[in-house]
Amino acid sequence: MAEAPSFVHNNWFTEKSDGIGFSIKIKEKIFEKQSQFQKIEIYDTETLGRLLLLDGKTMVSDKDEHIYHEMITHIPLNTHPNPKRALVIGGGDGGTIREIIKHPSIEEAYLVEIDEDVINACKEYFPEVSCALDDPRVTVCCEDGIQFIKDHKNYFDLIVIDSTDPEGFALELFSPSFYQNVYDALTDDGIMTNQTDNPFIYPDTVRTTYQNMGKVFQNIYMYWGYCMLYPGSFWTFGFGSKTYNPLLEVSIEKIKAKNLKTKYYNAGLQKGAFLLPQFALDILPDHAPQKRV
Amino acid sequence: MAEAPSFVHNNWFTEKSDGIGFSIKIKEKIFEKQSQFQKIEIYDTETLGRLLLLDGKTMVSDKDEHIYHEMITHIPLNTHPNPKRALVIGGGDGGTIREIIKHPSIEEAYLVEIDEDVINACKEYFPEVSCALDDPRVTVCCEDGIQFIKDHKNYFDLIVIDSTDPEGFALELFSPSFYQNVYDALTDDGIMTNQTDNPFIYPDTVRTTYQNMGKVFQNIYMYWGYCMLYPGSFWTFGFGSKTYNPLLEVSIEKIKAKNLKTKYYNAGLQKGAFLLPQFALDILPDHAPQKRV
Repeated sequence: MAEAPSFVHNNWFTEKSDGIGFSIKIKEKIFEKQSQFQKIEIYDTETLGRLLLLDGKTMVSDKDEHIYHEMITHIPLNTHPNPKRALVIGGGDGGTIREIIKHPSIEEAYLVEIDEDVINACKEYFPEVSCALDDPRVTVCCEDGIQFIKDHKNYFDLIVIDSTDPEGFALELFSPSFYQNVYDALTDDGIMTNQTDNPFIYPDTVRTTYQNMGKVFQNIYMYWGYCMLYPGSFWTFGFGSKTYNPLLEVSIEKIKAKNLKTKYYNAGLQKGAFLLPQFALDILPDHAPQKRV
Repeated sequence: MAEAPSFVHNNWFTEKSDGIGFSIKIKEKIFEKQSQFQKIEIYDTETLGRLLLLDGKTMVSDKDEHIYHEMITHIPLNTHPNPKRALVIGGGDGGTIREIIKHPSIEEAYLVEIDEDVINACKEYFPEVSCALDDPRVTVCCEDGIQFIKDHKNYFDLIVIDSTDPEGFALELFSPSFYQNVYDALTDDGIMTNQTDNPFIYPDTVRTTYQNMGKVFQNIYMYWGYCMLYPGSFWTFGFGSKTYNPLLEVSIEKIKAKNLKTKYYNAGLQKGAFLLPQFALDILPDHAPQKRV
């Protein structure tokens, strides 16, 4: 049996990752359910508001959830000139959908989350995260994203893979065959973004993810965001593009005109998030455009 | 009596900061001494190599120390066209000095560390960090930096405040009167950098630091680095300048030609580290140039 990913001592919850951990002072557990797929727990914490765990791993806190959700969405949506249809695979808390529908060009946004119990728990305990799931442009599908993506071709301008880490039932979401299905479900100028872990702590895992993306997408990029709860807090996002180059095609004035009301993302980060530390650049495949800077 | 800043449970060391903590799996304590100023402890850890604590707070690990030391030095030294004399206040581990003397223009580098016991412990247990302290260009002074700075006028091209956080005997290193003495000790085109904490966790502290810097320096900037061990891991550095603007005056080609052999810093970060998340920009005083981007 694998070692537990976390422990609680004296009201400090600690999630362990390769000899380091992130700890959170908790007040009380307010929800617990073993779903068909995973154990769902929600705590009240001392300084982060509410905290969602899935199988003992931190997913969302009230204090910092906006950072991950803003970065995985506004970077591609401000690169694409006119995104109309978006798909989120995973992301049952709803935060990614909330950010997507801030863009007025969006006409349809699909959330495909395998675990309905996550959606229901977040609707009840994270109302400020899940608030957009009832928007008329949003369709929520409680089904397997791996199957859903196979049934759609040339349809979405943006696909966000808002998954847990590459293990267990999420492992296939990091495979070349899955990326090929994502590619096929995108329009001719579509963009995929995904969460791709911490390359300082897990260099081999992250290298494999980008190699797999690079087998399918002509243009792959890595950018970073500050996800305090996640292992080591330096988080990366993948950007797979059929045509657009996020480093060239973005108008700062157009971003500012959208007035997106973000707390972390801003027009400077649209470029700045791609200017990576050397250890992160070193992990990218040789054909990645950021290697040539 | 104040609450202890850290605890150990089941060989996990946890440093607490406002309801969150960073945890490290330790193997054994290999050094402990109560110096005149602070408690010095060194551990062997499972995945970070050796770990230095001062008064129970993480300072240096073998795995990630290069990030802090590269960022607090190469950003200013690649902004200034010809830095010859550098001063480090604090920084008894020697890592900041090690990075400074990578620049061939440097003729004199002073380390002024109040606690000789820190220097001696790091010379014994962190040889790859302290390795430059015997370089002929380096002068090590075990004395109070606050007094040292008063005795020097118009002398240094770079002053690095490599201190602990603004509390106890380090508090004065964040005061307007100290920044004025630093200003006076700089040459007419000199630069100061300092470590300025995590603005996501401690917004009020960081705001005060930049307000104090702004009372003395015409041009103040904030940039970020990934310091995994420190509270929340998103770390900021202050940049106080008499003349040079780090966003305008840097030649990427000149940086590349120096071939600095860094593992984190690169030419892209020279600009990218100043492209900050909105919550960090919001903390800067209104006259800070980054507010106008």
